[in-house]
Amino acid sequence: MSVLVVGSTALDSIKTPVLENPRLLGGSASHAAVAASFFAPVKMVGIVGKDFPKKYVTLYKKHKIDLEGLQIADGETFHWSGEYELNMNKRRTLNTVLGVFETFTPHLPQQHKDSPYVLLANIAPSLQHHVLDQMNRPKFIVADTMDLWLNIALGDLLKLLKRVDAFVLNDSEAHLLTKETNIFPALKKIHKLGPKYVIIKKGEHGSVLSGPSGIFIAPAYPIKCVIDPTGAGDSFVGGMIGYLASVGGNVEKNLRRAIIHGSAVASFCCEGFGLSRTTRVTRKDIDARAKELEAMVRL
Amino acid sequence: MSVLVVGSTALDSIKTPVLENPRLLGGSASHAAVAASFFAPVKMVGIVGKDFPKKYVTLYKKHKIDLEGLQIADGETFHWSGEYELNMNKRRTLNTVLGVFETFTPHLPQQHKDSPYVLLANIAPSLQHHVLDQMNRPKFIVADTMDLWLNIALGDLLKLLKRVDAFVLNDSEAHLLTKETNIFPALKKIHKLGPKYVIIKKGEHGSVLSGPSGIFIAPAYPIKCVIDPTGAGDSFVGGMIGYLASVGGNVEKNLRRAIIHGSAVASFCCEGFGLSRTTRVTRKDIDARAKELEAMVRL
Repeated sequence: MSVLVVGSTALDSIKTPVLENPRLLGGSASHAAVAASFFAPVKMVGIVGKDFPKKYVTLYKKHKIDLEGLQIADGETFHWSGEYELNMNKRRTLNTVLGVFETFTPHLPQQHKDSPYVLLANIAPSLQHHVLDQMNRPKFIVADTMDLWLNIALGDLLKLLKRVDAFVLNDSEAHLLTKETNIFPALKKIHKLGPKYVIIKKGEHGSVLSGPSGIFIAPAYPIKCVIDPTGAGDSFVGGMIGYLASVGGNVEKNLRRAIIHGSAVASFCCEGFGLSRTTRVTRKDIDARAKELEAMVRL
Repeated sequence: MSVLVVGSTALDSIKTPVLENPRLLGGSASHAAVAASFFAPVKMVGIVGKDFPKKYVTLYKKHKIDLEGLQIADGETFHWSGEYELNMNKRRTLNTVLGVFETFTPHLPQQHKDSPYVLLANIAPSLQHHVLDQMNRPKFIVADTMDLWLNIALGDLLKLLKRVDAFVLNDSEAHLLTKETNIFPALKKIHKLGPKYVIIKKGEHGSVLSGPSGIFIAPAYPIKCVIDPTGAGDSFVGGMIGYLASVGGNVEKNLRRAIIHGSAVASFCCEGFGLSRTTRVTRKDIDARAKELEAMVRL
């Protein structure tokens, strides 16, 4: 079954202590769509400017991503510049050019409206709502977010949480949302806001799923060297929903294994700048890491 | 089979953002011995002063800890005072009175020398050596340490690593020892120093075991509120070796489950000041949490 991915499509200029890379393919939808594409057919909805490099369109196409919902508008592509600290855990934004994103309204082509699996990747909650307004009863809806929306669009986000099956956020965002320093009371509070499933991402420390079957504590894949963690969270959630779409059936039953596969894709994302490493791996490589991860938690 | 625990026996005065508790029973050997006692008979070796409260001796005895190796010397008991920050992750030492510890030499009673399981809990590496010098070929030796010894007694510690089966340290100590920010390359480097098994403790993020069967990523038990994390690492390693001694047989086969049981004991330790919570639980309570932890990593 197919996955609809809506989010940002951007150019990222990323500085790490080791290297600097300008105008890489980035954005939550780009990372998530490529990650999901290893498992299932993907339809991507987003917007880019006339300056968007052709090679990146070719790259989407290489991953068989349906681009009918990708608007190409007059103006500049959304451009984020950021810098990582030495331990790669903290990043700061150097500059943001919204460009064509400023006036973006996601329009869903007719055949997108029946997508059974929907990933509302990180983007303004009002746009995430707008996508859901156009959908015909999807089977499973996941929403991701970022601290920015918790700070400037909390009302919209809280309304969104009542409309999604799963909500994904990182540990510092969970703290920001609930004021809880410990993630387990935080999970409880977030469930009360609506979502049946809550997934808290903890970077190198893995992730925690909370749902009707209780808590699942998932490890991150042990990579030797983080080159660039940008997009790892998007890759994680993209891989997760892609896996769910590929196996179909009962979400509850497959979600833990889906998270393991999401972690595997995220690990590749961190091993190169932007999407450079992710786009060079195969489903077989991902499955091999997922299998290794499964062995690392087996008693 | 029995466990020999050697380490510090102390009084701890602990300040957290919420409470202040003077002269609690503390020290690496106290925490580790009580933790191990839930699983197997424990012999403890340490030293206290004449000021050591009788109630704490009663408490050791309640846990059936063999105290023949506990020296009672003229002078003050080792006394540590420390303070935790709001998020309970960072602590700073306010004061240390070495007291009788200053001249401590661990003497092993005759029947201690054949103990099959030996835990060299956190104490000066020279004393850990001194214990091993007196032992008759134990089946399994675990050593714990702290940053202090990495800074002031690295030579002794490096020699010790060639004499132990397993080495336990936390993530910041692993960084201090190997200069690696990522724990997986750090594990590789530490194996080269001697130990067949290396276990890195990551506090609320669980622990990682590296050994001949590969990597095992163990979760920490999700507790709602950390009251006082002092001794959690000692409880973890004590519970782990206690479990190993209780099941006997092949260490390789049982180590992952032993780590899960160690995590369960450590979680109780964090839920009260000093040993106040740990000494009120039963083996049944610990097994229940271990079972919950196993369910949290099951796919």
